[in-house]
Order: sequence, then structure tokens, then C-alpha cells
Amino acid sequence: MISEKMKPLVANNSAIRAMFEEGSQMKAIYGDDQVYDFSLGNPNVPAPPEVKQAILDILENEDPVYVHGYMSNAGFPETRKAIADSLNRRFDTHFTEKNILMTVGAASGLNVALKTLLNPGDQVITFAPYFVEYGSYVANYDGELVVVSPDTATFQPNLEEFEQKVSAKTKAVIINTPHNPTGVIYSEETLQRLAAILERKQEEFGTTIFLISDEPYRELAYDGAVVPYVTKYYRNTIVGYSYSKSLSLPGERIGYLVIPDEAEDAEQVIAAATIAIRVSGAVNAPSLMQLVIARCVDASVDVAYYDRNRNALYNGLIDCGFTCTKPQGAFYLFMKSPFADEKKFCEMAKKYHILMVPGSSFACPGYVRLAYCVSYETIQNSLPAFQALARECFPEK
Amino acid sequence: MISEKMKPLVANNSAIRAMFEEGSQMKAIYGDDQVYDFSLGNPNVPAPPEVKQAILDILENEDPVYVHGYMSNAGFPETRKAIADSLNRRFDTHFTEKNILMTVGAASGLNVALKTLLNPGDQVITFAPYFVEYGSYVANYDGELVVVSPDTATFQPNLEEFEQKVSAKTKAVIINTPHNPTGVIYSEETLQRLAAILERKQEEFGTTIFLISDEPYRELAYDGAVVPYVTKYYRNTIVGYSYSKSLSLPGERIGYLVIPDEAEDAEQVIAAATIAIRVSGAVNAPSLMQLVIARCVDASVDVAYYDRNRNALYNGLIDCGFTCTKPQGAFYLFMKSPFADEKKFCEMAKKYHILMVPGSSFACPGYVRLAYCVSYETIQNSLPAFQALARECFPEK
Repeated sequence: MISEKMKPLVANNSAIRAMFEEGSQMKAIYGDDQVYDFSLGNPNVPAPPEVKQAILDILENEDPVYVHGYMSNAGFPETRKAIADSLNRRFDTHFTEKNILMTVGAASGLNVALKTLLNPGDQVITFAPYFVEYGSYVANYDGELVVVSPDTATFQPNLEEFEQKVSAKTKAVIINTPHNPTGVIYSEETLQRLAAILERKQEEFGTTIFLISDEPYRELAYDGAVVPYVTKYYRNTIVGYSYSKSLSLPGERIGYLVIPDEAEDAEQVIAAATIAIRVSGAVNAPSLMQLVIARCVDASVDVAYYDRNRNALYNGLIDCGFTCTKPQGAFYLFMKSPFADEKKFCEMAKKYHILMVPGSSFACPGYVRLAYCVSYETIQNSLPAFQALARECFPEK
Repeated sequence: MISEKMKPLVANNSAIRAMFEEGSQMKAIYGDDQVYDFSLGNPNVPAPPEVKQAILDILENEDPVYVHGYMSNAGFPETRKAIADSLNRRFDTHFTEKNILMTVGAASGLNVALKTLLNPGDQVITFAPYFVEYGSYVANYDGELVVVSPDTATFQPNLEEFEQKVSAKTKAVIINTPHNPTGVIYSEETLQRLAAILERKQEEFGTTIFLISDEPYRELAYDGAVVPYVTKYYRNTIVGYSYSKSLSLPGERIGYLVIPDEAEDAEQVIAAATIAIRVSGAVNAPSLMQLVIARCVDASVDVAYYDRNRNALYNGLIDCGFTCTKPQGAFYLFMKSPFADEKKFCEMAKKYHILMVPGSSFACPGYVRLAYCVSYETIQNSLPAFQALARECFPEK
């Protein structure tokens, strides 16, 4: 009965659901606090108090017809201006409200960007490991996702292979920084080299290639790490942002796209993206949350909370003898499986009530992802379990 | 730079924007209260007080990680259960929470349903006059929209022509009741005849044809008019609902799909639609508003407000000598243009500061749409302008 495109997604989804159900069953049997669930990227830090205060203030002082009503498909002008001003202050950019389009989270923003740009058969390049939903998003518009294999030494993008894979059919490149699942931040040097390759290839093929930067984790950066603003390195950049992590509002579906004036045919791209928000069925980003953002544009969740988790989990795993890249940002830790088949490693970990996601789910087998957006107690309590797991993995030690 | 599919939408959008800008200019010149803008379906009745109370209650008593967090892509179970229970009470249906999928408004719900069902080249039938965005929604999934011409005597669907147009390629039929732009409610007899045709055609072609009922105006029915619940007449029905009008929350983007157990392959269709919500980029309907709905499932805006507008405008226009179908529901009035070229009529009306939408925008030339979701004062103040317009249209009277 369902469409051919949906059939493989339904089949694949059953596997994911089976994993979740197994986790739920484990919690039902052993108790929530006896299962160490690192499988979900669902923030557990509450929204900052400014969010509640903003909602109360809006409900008290604004006309409900305005608060809950339609506005331009691109969003309330005051919200877009507040965001543009904030970006300009922080990153020395020069955006105005017309460069900012409010979207139903970053996932919807990426879809809007791809719907705006892609013709059937166009190629979109991304770098493994990557968030597998990118494949569905590109398929929504009959594009072809081209995956560059991982550089497991640094988890910076493999630019040699990238350069070979850029073709006359390349319409867009998706990057994600800070990065899910590795926690790596793309360095300024990486962005400069990436931009130089794109410039050369645009000239070689006489094409325009858009760099789509998926940045829901921008504010989650540790040890003073700088997350370079991508529009400053390459003019044909579209930034997709979300408040899911920075304000812990993942369920509210609120984010934005940045389309700079310097981008090729910027005016037309902005017009088309605005229409794409409408005809995709979203119509506009949720109105009350847009007004909240206008009031909370510089608020942030408590990043120190995630940082404490990061250090505790990283140090604990290193002490156990596991090999991990220390995350610079986001709330994920990518750990090397002690043996090639990381799915077997994930199965073994379940005996110790530890739930992790196999790297194969990010096109990077041999690794596992741990989402440390959990309570600090969960991390502390999990460490003896990881030690027991390590003893099984490294019996010689 | 933009995709081929988006190009005609951008071109067409410029015309719509030009119309809005003309309206804004008129208001700037003559003052808001001297321009009678009947062009926009943006509710002007505030959300009922239960909505604000529910938000305050949720913020006060619930954990923000839950309120603003991710949930199942289909929505919070408690919200879906509250909706199923309410429908069952009101319409003697037998839904459970698994038949209800929360969506980013009805527009997103229709897109989810079409993404779930359509293969490229599949036909979707609708009845003129119709909301033109249906064309974009069907095109999103490479379907072909087939339009049945209007029955201008009653504005019930033209079922004779419909029967001829149903083919082996027909995958879905979209109806909208109460109806934009005519205000007509599809009668029980209409639904029975429509269902009988679909049953016959399914048998004739050995296919399954889904009836998608777009019902954002369900609660806006006047004079005690009954809006039959479509799943009771035809088992392969999907209902798309929105709280945009019933709770005046159009900007919040909150609605749902109903997929009954009786529908063909219901379990698979529900699974695919749930995934379609995710991969389309919406991920889930906005979380706070879902919790509001669970608490406000039987609340409603003040329908008497729209009813007063309806009577004042209808009676005023009839007194002027215009020909209109009296709306039974929604907040639109469809008026016959005094001459064939209704765009010329709309232009003429602008001289009197009256803004209306040409019926051509709904595939029904010769008529104009007036949205009476405006203040009562606007309607009263507009009547002398309509009288002056009538004198120009009917100089012989």
C-alpha cells in the first residue's frame, strides 16, 4: 500500500525500534538506574530559565492573535533580526533579517535547503561518519548521497578523497561541526582547505556548489574551543541551526537557515527556500517559540554540565583501556571497538547493561557512539560496568 | 541556481506577494480601518483562555526536559489518547492512540499522507474550487493532481465527473469539508455517494484508493449543521486535522492525522507515516503545543463571533444585489462575480478599498473569495463600500 520510497525505511525502522524496545525491556527488568543508556541524543539538561520567563512574559504582555498567528513563511521579522544581530556580534558577520529563515528545527532546515537546490540525480557529498538521516533527506528530492570515507586518525574530513569525489554533478556538500558522532570540531585549516577545493572545482566544472553546514551543536564546545563560522570561509554556504541543544528545546522544532547575500543568486535562493518552507507543509516555524528565541537569543544551557560528563566518561574509558577521540564539542564520544565487529561489541556491552550505537549506523564500522547527555550519576555508575566489559575484552591485561 | 521544481513556484509567488504589497500600501495610505481586507484566512479570534491556562499549568508543574523534549515521532501518547477519546465520544468512532499521529499542522499532515502513499505518476483527484497548495503537495511526491470541475449550483462535489476521472492510476482523493473557499459542508448523502463510487472503482481496478479528508474547519459549523465524520462512510480514509482554526493556533503548527484500523494495510501505513514525519525533517509536532492539546482537546474558539460576521456579511452582500452561497461552515464566503472576469471585479473593488481573492486562484473563475475572519467592525464598515461597488456593477438598478 505504501510508496516504494518508504518501503526500505519501514524495513530499516523495525531494526531501530527493536533496539529501543530491548532497551526499554532492560530498564523494566533491572530498573532505570541499573541500565546505562548512551544510545539517545536527547538532551537531559533543562532549558535555561530565560525560556520559561520569556513564555510567561509573552503570554502576559502580547496579543494571543499575534503570538499564535501566522506570520511571513520566513518567520517573525523581529526574531530574524535578533538572530542576525547576535551572529554579527559574535562572529563579525554582516547578516540582516532577510538572510535568516526560521525553520522547524535543523532537520527541516536541511530539507528546505535541499528542496531548494536539488534536481533529480544531483549529487550531495558528505563525510563518514555521518548522521544517516542525511541519506533520507537527499533521497526526498531524488538526489544521490556520495559518502567520503572516514579519516579515523583525526576524524577531520578526508579532503584528499573528497577532492576526487567532487564532480560536475555535485550540487551540495553537507558538513556537521561540532560533529555527531565524533565530537570533533572542524578546524579553521580544514575549512580553508575545503573551501579552496570547492572554489577550484566550481571553476573547473563551471558549476555552483553549496556547502551546507549543519550546526545544532555550535554552542556545545569545550576547553574554549573555537567553532569557526563557515560563511566566512566560503561564500556559497548555507548554515542550518537548531535550538534543540543550545536551549534544550529539541521537541519544539525551532531553528533557522542562514543564506548569506554573498551566495550565488542569493535573492532567488532565499525566495525559493521561503516557499519551500510553505509548500513542504511546515508553513512556518512554531510562532510562540519564535518569539521566545527573539528574547533568548544569547541564552544557553549549562554547557559545564555536559563538560563534566565528557571528562568523567572519557577519563573513565581511557582508564579501562579503551581507545577514544576526546570530544571537543557536541555531547557524543566515539570509541574504538576492541575488535572489528563493533555490533558484537555492542551486544557484549548489553550484558553489563550498557547501551551504545554501532558505528555502522554512521557508516563507520569498528567504532561505537556514546551519547553523554545523561545524568552525571549514570556516567559514574556506568564506570564499573565498563571496567567489567574491559576485562572481558582485554583478558590478557 | 534553484531546482527546476521550485522555479515556477518562485515565479507564481511574486504575483501573490505583489497582491499583499498592494494591500499593505493601501493600508499605509488610507489607514487600516479604511481598507476592507477579506483576502487572508488568518483567524482574528483569540485562542480560548484554556490555552494560556494550559501553558501556565504545564510550565509550573511539568519537568522542562519532558515538556520541550523529544518523544515518539508520532507524538506524546497522552495527547494521542486524549484526541482518540474525544473523537470517539463525539463521533462514535473506535480509535486508540495508535490511530492518531501528531503533525506540524494539517498542511504537514497532508504531506505526510501523500509521502506515505504516492509513487511517481500516481494520480490524486480533488474537486474545484480547491486550495491551490494541494497542487504543490502532490507535486512534492511527483504525483499528478487531477481536478474535477465545480458544481456551481451547490458547490457539493461533482460526482458524475469524478466517477469518470477515477482511473487505475488514482491513488488518493482529497476532500475538504467544511470547505475553503465556499463554506459548504459535504452532506452525508455526498459522502455516501462518494464512498460508493470509490468502492466500485477499487473493485473495478483491483486497487486501493485513499480518501484524504482535510478538516481544519471541522469545528466551524453554523446553525447546528452536522459535519459527518468521514471514516464512518469509507474505510480507506485518512483524516487531516489542525488546531489552527478551532483553537486559533495557526502559527503554532499543531494538528494530527487519523489512520483507522479499518484502512487497508493500516499497520504498515501508520508505520510509514510515522517515519515520514521524521524524514521530512519535522521529526515531531511541537512538544509544548502537544501537551496543550492534551489539556484543551474539547476547548474551542468563540464560533458565535464568526457566525455574527457570516450573517452580517452575507445579508449585506445579498442586500447589495450580489449572488452568494450562504456558508454553512469555515470562515469564507464565495461570491459570484457580476461579470465573467472576476479578476477585473477584484480590481474594481480595490477602488472601494475592498480586497478579495479571485476564484481563479481556486480553479473556479467567475467567483471571488471573502475571508470573514476579520473584526465585526470591518464588516460593518465595508458594507457602504460594497454598496458603492454594487452601484458601479449594476448601474441599471
